[in-house]
Amino acid sequence: MNYNTQMEAAKKGIITPQMKLVAKKECRDPEFIRQYVAEGKIAICANKNHKCVDANGVGSMLRTKINVNLGVSRDCKDYDVEMKKVMEAVNMGAEAIMDLSSHGDTTGFRRKLTSECPAMVGTVPVYDSVIHYQRDLATLTAKDFIEVVRLHAQDGVDFVTLHCGITRKTIEQIKSHKRKMNIVSRGGSLVFAWMCMTGNENPFYEYYDEILEICREYDVTISLGDACRPGCLADAGDVCQIDELVRLGELTKRAWAKDVQVMVEGPGHVPLDQVEANMKIQQTICMGAPFYVLGPIVTDIAPGYDHITAAIGGAVAAMAGAAFLCYVTPAEHLALPNVDDVKQGIIASKIAAHAADIAKKIPNARDLDDKMADARRKLDWEGQWECALDPEYAKSIRDERTPEFDDTCSMCGKFCAVRSMNKALSNEYIDIL
Amino acid sequence: MNYNTQMEAAKKGIITPQMKLVAKKECRDPEFIRQYVAEGKIAICANKNHKCVDANGVGSMLRTKINVNLGVSRDCKDYDVEMKKVMEAVNMGAEAIMDLSSHGDTTGFRRKLTSECPAMVGTVPVYDSVIHYQRDLATLTAKDFIEVVRLHAQDGVDFVTLHCGITRKTIEQIKSHKRKMNIVSRGGSLVFAWMCMTGNENPFYEYYDEILEICREYDVTISLGDACRPGCLADAGDVCQIDELVRLGELTKRAWAKDVQVMVEGPGHVPLDQVEANMKIQQTICMGAPFYVLGPIVTDIAPGYDHITAAIGGAVAAMAGAAFLCYVTPAEHLALPNVDDVKQGIIASKIAAHAADIAKKIPNARDLDDKMADARRKLDWEGQWECALDPEYAKSIRDERTPEFDDTCSMCGKFCAVRSMNKALSNEYIDIL
Repeated sequence: MNYNTQMEAAKKGIITPQMKLVAKKECRDPEFIRQYVAEGKIAICANKNHKCVDANGVGSMLRTKINVNLGVSRDCKDYDVEMKKVMEAVNMGAEAIMDLSSHGDTTGFRRKLTSECPAMVGTVPVYDSVIHYQRDLATLTAKDFIEVVRLHAQDGVDFVTLHCGITRKTIEQIKSHKRKMNIVSRGGSLVFAWMCMTGNENPFYEYYDEILEICREYDVTISLGDACRPGCLADAGDVCQIDELVRLGELTKRAWAKDVQVMVEGPGHVPLDQVEANMKIQQTICMGAPFYVLGPIVTDIAPGYDHITAAIGGAVAAMAGAAFLCYVTPAEHLALPNVDDVKQGIIASKIAAHAADIAKKIPNARDLDDKMADARRKLDWEGQWECALDPEYAKSIRDERTPEFDDTCSMCGKFCAVRSMNKALSNEYIDIL
Repeated sequence: MNYNTQMEAAKKGIITPQMKLVAKKECRDPEFIRQYVAEGKIAICANKNHKCVDANGVGSMLRTKINVNLGVSRDCKDYDVEMKKVMEAVNMGAEAIMDLSSHGDTTGFRRKLTSECPAMVGTVPVYDSVIHYQRDLATLTAKDFIEVVRLHAQDGVDFVTLHCGITRKTIEQIKSHKRKMNIVSRGGSLVFAWMCMTGNENPFYEYYDEILEICREYDVTISLGDACRPGCLADAGDVCQIDELVRLGELTKRAWAKDVQVMVEGPGHVPLDQVEANMKIQQTICMGAPFYVLGPIVTDIAPGYDHITAAIGGAVAAMAGAAFLCYVTPAEHLALPNVDDVKQGIIASKIAAHAADIAKKIPNARDLDDKMADARRKLDWEGQWECALDPEYAKSIRDERTPEFDDTCSMCGKFCAVRSMNKALSNEYIDIL
């Protein structure tokens, strides 16, 4: 191979096997994919050491992708259960799994993931630093953090979230600006806390060039973390958020200069009328680098239902240019998600992504919807299950409340509009009573 | 009283008790409300015979209202259960209940509703015509339909959905245009079917002036039904839909000329990128008459989750001008909703309405969100439950998975960003391990 990264290949005019695969999946020409990878507008997160990866492209002109956060924790340390969740998430259509493990043998689990999981694998090395060294945060050195990034790269991780965009200036900014929620990014808060305790500059910012070398070697995509993403509606779009975004734009340019692929992470909690503006500003400041958003959730008062608040924000965000949605589960802000929460989160994200893809007129995005409409008109229930995002659940609702007449459902019975119209248009007599 | 309807009073410069109440609820000046009622941009649906109604205003400059469809059916004929569902819906924040009963003693249930339910009560008289007369559709006369409208008006119904906008021209339009889903409006399909079987003009169109007299007498708001609302994404925005909307605009003007209040009903199934356009066109064609939308749902492939697809469309619709959201439950397209489906539907609609109100900068809309953010920063769990839309459910998620440390939750444990930041900003040592 005469290239290190997908971006380097693209710039040299080489169409890689991964680009061909992405082109096929997206019903696009391979040259279309190559061109956007060269420009940084599509990231193909595929570490050379993740041999089983089924490559996908992340970019606003492609199908919107979704990420599922999983991983072992102090409260949930069964690796086998977690691996089962991973494979279920992949089967439900998740294109990426972020391993946020923060307990026990994180290395073993990460390696298992990159040897068995076909989805893109992402990590947040700063979490793992504490666990890996089994030393508390304040005792770690900048070098320690960088070595964990190297370890993850060697292990085949496709993208790493690094909170490179905050600096010592951010400490004063957060203090003086008096946000309601300060920093709600877990990784961002660790970097911030480490800076406060040690008096040092952010290692991920200070040693960014060293990180780029590592990422270039293995083709790890940097997902530039947004430490200052708003953690409530009141903090949205404030100077802390936007100033960090400006730095993320500068860091994007530096990465691209070394052929390192980049995604940029985004909010968070955002009022619905500000979602589109967030996407447009990211696209200009970060020159079209794929935007990876967490939510955004559009109200703070719905704990237990944040998969819905995030589906609203995510759909609008993806329509306006976000390329990658991180799922949010009903347990967000409350507890570690259980198996059903994970499922609910994935489905809500898939709905948001799909609604946006239709809105963006992604090729063939509406095909299944049209097939569903045909099945509905024919009152063909089997045909409807074939098109449904979750056929088992849909079928269970109908089966639980069997209708009196087979050609209707128990909602309307003989008042069914579809039944009446089919009869009316065939000049048949319509019995309602 | 020297006026028949709220609109007549408003035009005469009279501020009614209902306008005062609405003004208080909306943190607006009574004169502001009066002016918009006079212009038809706010409807206060309050039938003179609905003595216990707790009046609300419906208009794009006010808090977005939500409607809950309930009512007895062949499969669910227990009036007491249904009445319990009604009062639960009101307690959960529904401002309107549509009684779609289609079985048994519909008159008794309707009268019970208007004597006990404080929410606006709406009905679709055409459904009830078949039941009321216990005669099949084809045998009913235009006069029969009108008499049922009168009966509902006398019984204290605040708003009636009438599918006045289709005519015999629509029959040819539907046939020649070859929609995927033809007509999916239940009432619309009945009117269409009746026209096909009898060869007559739409009675709700032909005898519109007579209907206006009835509505004027009792102050019943006409909710102009959209028989041709798209029933799948493929049909959205087609000539059948828009041509009907044009007629609804004409009918709006005729109603206003007789001081009858109007709402206009809207889609339905709409691709996300067309939602805003739908709202804007309705506002121009119908001169700002309040828009009452069913959904809109933004993909057809998620049966079982249409409360989510509708929350996405509803939030965007309300932000762009819809004033009134009809809830959609997870059972939509599948079965009659059960008690839990009703709850899920209400919560999803409330989320959509609230997100839109924040986006529209409705006075005080974000207050509770800000309070929630303050409680979150303080890791004050009791304070969070006070702000939550569904505190019991949120609390149950946390309680089910108790965290190791009281000042965190089981999602992040000691990795909690809020905990780390609170310590960092107080110059405390941050222990993570």
